[in-house]
Amino acid sequence: MSSRIPDEVSRIFASAPFIADLGIRLESSGPGACTTVLPLERRHLQQDGYVHAGVQATIADHTAGAAAASLVKEGQYVLSAEFKINLLRAAKGERLVCRSKVLKAGSQLIVAESEVFCVASGEERLVSKATVTLAVVAPRPAPPG
Amino acid sequence: MSSRIPDEVSRIFASAPFIADLGIRLESSGPGACTTVLPLERRHLQQDGYVHAGVQATIADHTAGAAAASLVKEGQYVLSAEFKINLLRAAKGERLVCRSKVLKAGSQLIVAESEVFCVASGEERLVSKATVTLAVVAPRPAPPG
Amino acid sequence: MSSRIPDEVSRIFASAPFIADLGIRLESSGPGACTTVLPLERRHLQQDGYVHAGVQATIADHTAGAAAASLVKEGQYVLSAEFKINLLRAAKGERLVCRSKVLKAGSQLIVAESEVFCVASGEERLVSKATVTLAVVAPRPAPPG
Amino acid sequence: MSSRIPDEVSRIFASAPFIADLGIRLESSGPGACTTVLPLERRHLQQDGYVHAGVQATIADHTAGAAAASLVKEGQYVLSAEFKINLLRAAKGERLVCRSKVLKAGSQLIVAESEVFCVASGEERLVSKATVTLAVVAPRPAPPG
Repeated sequence: MSSRIPDEVSRIFASAPFIADLGIRLESSGPGACTTVLPLERRHLQQDGYVHAGVQATIADHTAGAAAASLVKEGQYVLSAEFKINLLRAAKGERLVCRSKVLKAGSQLIVAESEVFCVASGEERLVSKATVTLAVVAPRPAPPG
Repeated sequence: MSSRIPDEVSRIFASAPFIADLGIRLESSGPGACTTVLPLERRHLQQDGYVHAGVQATIADHTAGAAAASLVKEGQYVLSAEFKINLLRAAKGERLVCRSKVLKAGSQLIVAESEVFCVASGEERLVSKATVTLAVVAPRPAPPG
Repeated sequence: MSSRIPDEVSRIFASAPFIADLGIRLESSGPGACTTVLPLERRHLQQDGYVHAGVQATIADHTAGAAAASLVKEGQYVLSAEFKINLLRAAKGERLVCRSKVLKAGSQLIVAESEVFCVASGEERLVSKATVTLAVVAPRPAPPG
Repeated sequence: MSSRIPDEVSRIFASAPFIADLGIRLESSGPGACTTVLPLERRHLQQDGYVHAGVQATIADHTAGAAAASLVKEGQYVLSAEFKINLLRAAKGERLVCRSKVLKAGSQLIVAESEVFCVASGEERLVSKATVTLAVVAPRPAPPG
């Protein structure tokens, strides 16, 4: 990982067991943006052979969280408060690519969008889109004195 | 599994690789309702030690799908069109229990709600709640002939 | 209005021009709960003769806000951060009744649910359901000194 | 209105009482896209002097419906099944402008996005963003005969 990736973004990928278990990898990160990739395996599928909505939701939520985390102050972190995802097309292919960007960064809430693409035979198609609201959690200031 | 569980509900759990991989199990099923359980392991967690939102989204979506599938006609199946989940409390414990029920069953769309509880030391707490919209997919009628 | 209704709840109904313009009235309020009523007129309708989704969204959002406002500390207020509404059935009748309750009240965010019913010939039917996330906004503490 | 505007889009604006009552006007329409405008008045406001979330939800939903309606076959129409809106910034100004575009048009469901801008002193700011799922309603085919 490039040294330009903020510590909080790196931490989100390096130390989240569920993300490592699924195989989601950080591709790139910038201020208010993040891209991730998931090489697809049989275990990611639904009963009909397509990528499970839960896999798409996980990459959409986590990548949005990383995009948001790139904007918070040192010591702050973000927590997903809610998200909504529309499953637009059946997803079948070699890998998912998720691109998230922050729509609005407030001091208390950050709203980000994630677009999930499925790559099949080199062609990329938008398969789902999510909107994620994240709470900015600040450590409490030390008491005066 | 009890023989009272509709074929389509059984199929949804028996043949979805992602659900088997995560460890989500069908607990009970009735008309327009479904309950599932997920014994929690380290691999289900977020970087902060709590259950990942993607795990909660997966169990909420899949259980809602099963509740909806219990109501469709033979040969029809359901596909998640979209869902929204609110993460209400940090989830830490031994297992998740998800209870889904259908709010409205139409011929084209079914709307279901899922409540995800986390059980810790025998105590159950609501950790997230989702609303799921499912499309009822009908096989095309054979051409007249 | 009864004196038991918190000031912040009363204020939300007494001084919101859009709510007065539509005709939405506070019916009752308790800790973390609120009920409102809207007598339906032709101007509330969609092109097909049913109540417009925007009217249902407005009563669902505003009533959830009032349910949340009943729980905040003096001087704090709430702002809708986002909401999602499912339109379950075509709404036609004499009035809408909206019942909202708080699902989770945190110090930073409150999540509430609203059920919107349409009353026709004395019969009440659930026509839409919404989940609303509200930010608790605290006035800044006066600077020491 | 230009004759290039599809009949179903024109109908949606010409004959929806709630839209006429609020003052929402069709600005332009193309395949899978629609833009509307609402000159703001005091009656559109919330208790805090900002545009009510219900007004923003109404313009977001209705404009998305018009964008979707531009794509359906003759005789078909669209109905909002659900929507989700994030209120990103307090809205204060002279008018709202809403731009909607279709993300995915299926035979059964259409998903559209709406961006709501508030114009103040000639400057446009994104104040909310919505995702809308619409059901395509087809008249039943006449029985063979």
